[in-house]
Amino acid sequence: MDLAQASVRDVGEFALIDLITRRLRAGKDPSPDVLVGPGDDAAVLAIPQGRLAASTDVLVEDVHFRRAWSSAVDVGVKAAAQNCADLVAMGAQPRALLVGLVMPPDLPAAWPLDLADGLRMEAERAGAVVIGGDLSSGPTIVLAVTALGEAPERPVLRSGARPGDIVAVCGSLGGPAAGLALLAAGRTEPRAAVAAHQRPRPEYAWGVRAAGHASAMIDVSDGLLADAGHLADRSDVTLALVREEIGLDPLLIEAAHVLGADPWDWVLAGGEEHAFLATFPARVPEGFRAIGRVQPRGTHAVTVDGLPWSGRIGHRHFGPTPTP
Amino acid sequence: MDLAQASVRDVGEFALIDLITRRLRAGKDPSPDVLVGPGDDAAVLAIPQGRLAASTDVLVEDVHFRRAWSSAVDVGVKAAAQNCADLVAMGAQPRALLVGLVMPPDLPAAWPLDLADGLRMEAERAGAVVIGGDLSSGPTIVLAVTALGEAPERPVLRSGARPGDIVAVCGSLGGPAAGLALLAAGRTEPRAAVAAHQRPRPEYAWGVRAAGHASAMIDVSDGLLADAGHLADRSDVTLALVREEIGLDPLLIEAAHVLGADPWDWVLAGGEEHAFLATFPARVPEGFRAIGRVQPRGTHAVTVDGLPWSGRIGHRHFGPTPTP
Repeated sequence: MDLAQASVRDVGEFALIDLITRRLRAGKDPSPDVLVGPGDDAAVLAIPQGRLAASTDVLVEDVHFRRAWSSAVDVGVKAAAQNCADLVAMGAQPRALLVGLVMPPDLPAAWPLDLADGLRMEAERAGAVVIGGDLSSGPTIVLAVTALGEAPERPVLRSGARPGDIVAVCGSLGGPAAGLALLAAGRTEPRAAVAAHQRPRPEYAWGVRAAGHASAMIDVSDGLLADAGHLADRSDVTLALVREEIGLDPLLIEAAHVLGADPWDWVLAGGEEHAFLATFPARVPEGFRAIGRVQPRGTHAVTVDGLPWSGRIGHRHFGPTPTP
Repeated sequence: MDLAQASVRDVGEFALIDLITRRLRAGKDPSPDVLVGPGDDAAVLAIPQGRLAASTDVLVEDVHFRRAWSSAVDVGVKAAAQNCADLVAMGAQPRALLVGLVMPPDLPAAWPLDLADGLRMEAERAGAVVIGGDLSSGPTIVLAVTALGEAPERPVLRSGARPGDIVAVCGSLGGPAAGLALLAAGRTEPRAAVAAHQRPRPEYAWGVRAAGHASAMIDVSDGLLADAGHLADRSDVTLALVREEIGLDPLLIEAAHVLGADPWDWVLAGGEEHAFLATFPARVPEGFRAIGRVQPRGTHAVTVDGLPWSGRIGHRHFGPTPTP
């Protein structure tokens, strides 16, 4: 069978599982922590410290990605990244992924194999491996990834921020939203902004290392203001952000110029960066930069330059787009 | 808002997460093993023995269930059951579930709340709780459940069966397939067969207890012959099953009479029972009954009364329905 021409239906479930499993392994020996890998009823993973961090995220075609704008490798990278970032935002070290994949039977068989490459590549960046999964047919592509990791003795919650703490972020903001806006306008330049949408690159190692110092942490998936709001609400404080400290990446200025858009909308309301937003009682650790201060709870969960933000604040499934 | 009339879109993502979380908890205190429950970036679970078993399964509307034939509670029970059964088939004790849920925005809001009831009820039967999840919109309902559990020091693999071992099963066979056939024919009686399709009831405790004695184990999800074949292939043996030992539940005879069908097709090729099929070197433990013997590998992975089975052998996504 010519795999380049074949559909998922042509290859069949069990042959596909075999091919995907091989692409996930990429010729490497399994990690010694993987006591039982893919192929049995369940996988078995060593968790020596006895504290497991676990998070699930779903990606739906035409909701979270479009095949015209993201390759299968891109989708794999993004799915692994957003799940591993959730673990790191707890201070946990990612160790393993499980992947549920729903595909239309006429999907090219190369798609799930390329997806496996993307999952493997990004899992590796985060220090994890894919240990299991499930395939099903369905009308549209749905990817459900569960990330498992080793949690620290004191996981970093959203609820620990205290007035006086420094608000800091690790990773650039606004790139994915700028890239999406460019693609929606039929543009492919600036290339780095498009790439930021296609393949987020969370700074896992810095996130894990900062965990010992942070009073609270969250990963920026819904947008800076939305996620800052989640953290502020849970901690019962106000996060006072300062645009001059947040700064604008020259790339965003360039993209905004191309589209005649306001780059601050991408930075403050974009989302999908999987940057780490944290609060620190003392100094800001390596990889993070200060962008504001924690204040006693005021009328608004988040302020920008001392005022509530009047624009869009982030993405939500179901229901109206939130405004402050 | 009148929840009985509202759609998922009307309620909105965050309010829905809050309502679902409350239904999952049902007023109870969280388990002390759940160090961090739903609502942060990731959940954190204590795994004192340091060996985690993990399995993911996806359920797709109109592939795995129909809303006309299964209530949301039924779908929740089934999703939890099939994932917990996968863990138990490794000898692991289920502890926690994570649930990814994709729903069309016009779905009645009562549906995911009833689903939460079903998930909670069956998780409780298995000794587990729901610790996290993710919601998304999408064109059709997709439910991706990951089950996490405590694995024994020696997980029970599919590959350990040896010639001379006794083949045994825990749980009745054929009921779900009979129930599905009845529903497809517009029947709702015999009620117990329909219920077997709607709500499988794996015997988790017997499965976990048998793990210390079993040389190999698998849960029957694709059909007895198909799953016996998976176990036989992995162990490089032949499973010789005996119909007189397997036996026919009177319920199946009644359903077969109603439909003019062959009940052995349901028993041998039906699937979705989530019964535990295991091999034992010595005596068969409580809850299991012998249905055959392990033989040195012959031409066929599985025989029935000494011969290869000439009928349908089980379900497969993508590709043709398998025949021996």
